[in-house]
Amino acid sequence: MRVLGIDPGTHRCGAGIIEGEGNRYKLIDALVIKTKSTAKIEKRLHQIFEEIKRLIREFKPDVLALENLFFAKDIQAVVRIGEARACAMLAAEEAGIPLAEYAPTSIKQSVTGNGRATKEQVSYMVTRLLSLKETPYADSADALAIAICHLHNAKSIVKDRRLTTNDNRHKSDKIKLLLSRTKKN
Amino acid sequence: MRVLGIDPGTHRCGAGIIEGEGNRYKLIDALVIKTKSTAKIEKRLHQIFEEIKRLIREFKPDVLALENLFFAKDIQAVVRIGEARACAMLAAEEAGIPLAEYAPTSIKQSVTGNGRATKEQVSYMVTRLLSLKETPYADSADALAIAICHLHNAKSIVKDRRLTTNDNRHKSDKIKLLLSRTKKN
Repeated sequence: MRVLGIDPGTHRCGAGIIEGEGNRYKLIDALVIKTKSTAKIEKRLHQIFEEIKRLIREFKPDVLALENLFFAKDIQAVVRIGEARACAMLAAEEAGIPLAEYAPTSIKQSVTGNGRATKEQVSYMVTRLLSLKETPYADSADALAIAICHLHNAKSIVKDRRLTTNDNRHKSDKIKLLLSRTKKN
Repeated sequence: MRVLGIDPGTHRCGAGIIEGEGNRYKLIDALVIKTKSTAKIEKRLHQIFEEIKRLIREFKPDVLALENLFFAKDIQAVVRIGEARACAMLAAEEAGIPLAEYAPTSIKQSVTGNGRATKEQVSYMVTRLLSLKETPYADSADALAIAICHLHNAKSIVKDRRLTTNDNRHKSDKIKLLLSRTKKN
């Protein structure tokens, strides 16, 4: 399954495409759509909309996963996130691909095993899970985390009763181990 | 000048098209884009996006005027307004027509002479200014108010120094008179 993760923002919109098979994840591409803060908002949104449509055309994801961030530093920032979210949702709907939404805590929980993990922990785990040589930029790391979260959730839906409690515990322990390593470094 | 006013919302999105010449306003069309609350958000946004694009194609407005509402009953409602706003902005940008944004208080001030006017006062003034036989639905009345606000502002930009302070005062008095009539009724 190929997933396009989007971390919505009107100034910097993170995008990450990964492909997952079993417990393996492969990075396809990761980028940040940057818009000029001096440009009019409608032009910035249109750039994001066009860029996401291009990513869908080029990488043909099976699903678009999106963060449903319902808080920000101020009300205007919340409206801006809503606007950026709409660009992703309209692009997915136009391309006829399904949309999946995840809360920030679910994404952190899924990637690091801790719903309150820091940005650095998320970034570290994304780097490990995708076997990247370098840590990706913050916005694209978040987008990749969203995509990974979807793969974890999609897998748990598909596998359903095949996963035993022990399997889950083992996986969770592995994540904790990796996290403790982060702290030591 | 023909103006398409949009009152953004994902459940009910008001739209009003008016044409203004001098001090005359003419209603072209007014409607409410209603989406099913049971439908997925991406489908609802797409419906709004497509409907606004259709209105632009059909009525060929010179400008799209939008309310920049930065508050609502809760954070989720703010995000939803942002999402609906993006549909209007993307439609305007795709059609190559300029966008104008007005704060709710500016719209109320412009239409009723009072920035804190009630919804009923706005609706009453819209009905009077456009010489309508019936009061339009709340959402489309708001959209028409946004469009009227733009005409007032566009006029004040165009006329610039031709308008004297007395002219403005006279206009303001006329609005107050109409409002006092509303209260009596």
